[in-house]
Amino acid sequence: MTKTRAAVVGYGNIGKAALEALLAAEDFEVAGIVRRNPSERENIPSEIPVVANISELGKVDVAILASPTRSIERQAKEILALGINTVDSFDIHGQIPALRTSLDAVAKTHNAVSIISAGWDPGSDSVVRTLLEAIAPKGITYTNFGPGRSMGHTVAVKAIEGVKDALSMTIPVGTGIHRRMVYVELLPGYELDKVAAAIKADPYFASDETHVIAVDSVDALNDVGHGVNLVRKGVSGSTHNQMFEFDMKINNPSLTGQVLVCVARAAMRQQPGCYTMIEIPVIDLLPGERDKWISHLV
Amino acid sequence: MTKTRAAVVGYGNIGKAALEALLAAEDFEVAGIVRRNPSERENIPSEIPVVANISELGKVDVAILASPTRSIERQAKEILALGINTVDSFDIHGQIPALRTSLDAVAKTHNAVSIISAGWDPGSDSVVRTLLEAIAPKGITYTNFGPGRSMGHTVAVKAIEGVKDALSMTIPVGTGIHRRMVYVELLPGYELDKVAAAIKADPYFASDETHVIAVDSVDALNDVGHGVNLVRKGVSGSTHNQMFEFDMKINNPSLTGQVLVCVARAAMRQQPGCYTMIEIPVIDLLPGERDKWISHLV
Repeated sequence: MTKTRAAVVGYGNIGKAALEALLAAEDFEVAGIVRRNPSERENIPSEIPVVANISELGKVDVAILASPTRSIERQAKEILALGINTVDSFDIHGQIPALRTSLDAVAKTHNAVSIISAGWDPGSDSVVRTLLEAIAPKGITYTNFGPGRSMGHTVAVKAIEGVKDALSMTIPVGTGIHRRMVYVELLPGYELDKVAAAIKADPYFASDETHVIAVDSVDALNDVGHGVNLVRKGVSGSTHNQMFEFDMKINNPSLTGQVLVCVARAAMRQQPGCYTMIEIPVIDLLPGERDKWISHLV
Repeated sequence: MTKTRAAVVGYGNIGKAALEALLAAEDFEVAGIVRRNPSERENIPSEIPVVANISELGKVDVAILASPTRSIERQAKEILALGINTVDSFDIHGQIPALRTSLDAVAKTHNAVSIISAGWDPGSDSVVRTLLEAIAPKGITYTNFGPGRSMGHTVAVKAIEGVKDALSMTIPVGTGIHRRMVYVELLPGYELDKVAAAIKADPYFASDETHVIAVDSVDALNDVGHGVNLVRKGVSGSTHNQMFEFDMKINNPSLTGQVLVCVARAAMRQQPGCYTMIEIPVIDLLPGERDKWISHLV
């Protein structure tokens, strides 16, 4: 079996998880890690090259972009221009169609494939939402997140004056409505009431029920568990009250890293262009020949 | 918008449900119903042709085969040979790969598409199973069916001497194990004990916990509701205990009919050949342009 040579670009939580998933996948070979400071090796196995630029890694079939969402477009374009496939977990829902259009042109020009927004939401949840929309075409889907840490909300709290460290937990209260539980370590001289008022006035929190709690150590609350409860009630043909529910309780970076490796595999099987996960056959996420999986899973 | 002209072949529970789903879908036009006795119109709307042979319907883009599983291969081959796409819900899991190989050759020869085994299991459940296998590659999936009527088991009971009418309910007891609750109307002169022993000795029941209950009217128990609880616990990358669950409570023929209409649509978008549902992008199950769905669902 020819192994697919994959590079991991970025080595935060998601990059580490993607590397773990690559090492567990028999059809992949790790070409190397690309990070700003390649001398920081932490506990990366010594046989894996760590470099500052992907061009230092020799032949690379696919690059797993485990970098901040806002740098994805620029990075993907640079790497696609080298004829290397890219995958990412770009997660700003409203900007996904524009990113897809932009990368599609670059990918086609350079005969490469890009699969974007591939994590769990957007990502695997999107596949389930699409399937349920199809099999019960009229109805409402609610995606309930958590309990789990929201990165975006946490960053917003950290930017508020008087906050030393913070954690914003997303708590599902049903029908797509969420409560925000915000844990803050305050800087000396700041009062909880004033900081809490500033947090609740922030656009990230203004429309949700938000509770702000002062703690001695945000780090002591650290847990990367997350979850989703996705519910659809709808109509199939002329029959109402068809009920569907998808639930998961997962380690967030590990699932994201695994999904990225699945789509890195799928990228090798698509025609040039840019795709979201709902546009690729699920069987392409799996290693090896189709026949075995059709017998086993259909 | 050019509408897809679909014929429904067979007009039992599934054919009726497929017609309902077609009539609710704006991108389809009903070419007609094909059934053995076309003079039986029941309550089919008068504008819909009912014929004995699909060639009487003028141009047909896709035929929805709502006929018994054992006649699918022959029917599909005949219709594919006319250059008409076919979809079906062939449900003998072990024979799916062979059917796919057989129809793939015929479909390619006649420049047509066939999508097989498209119901809920095999079908939409297969898509969920494949997705979960990909995103947690090590682990165990349990598919728990019911409570709901098993067609195969019911037919097996009806074949036993002394049984006038029967219903076999599938009751999930977890981890893919099922209890069989069998309701029988006995013919005069037969004893429950002997009939029950014959049922429990049948290969369909021999390995499951089976209870046989005599009732005055099997018809009074008629309910086409069904369900599934599909559970996977597995490993993403190197992280264990990732937990996933997919649940549904549905009207069985209505969901099957709706899935058949979704794959009839998808058939118009594939290259010639034969496919199972896990081999087609879920977005192809939905009507209209991709861009709208990507914004809405990813």
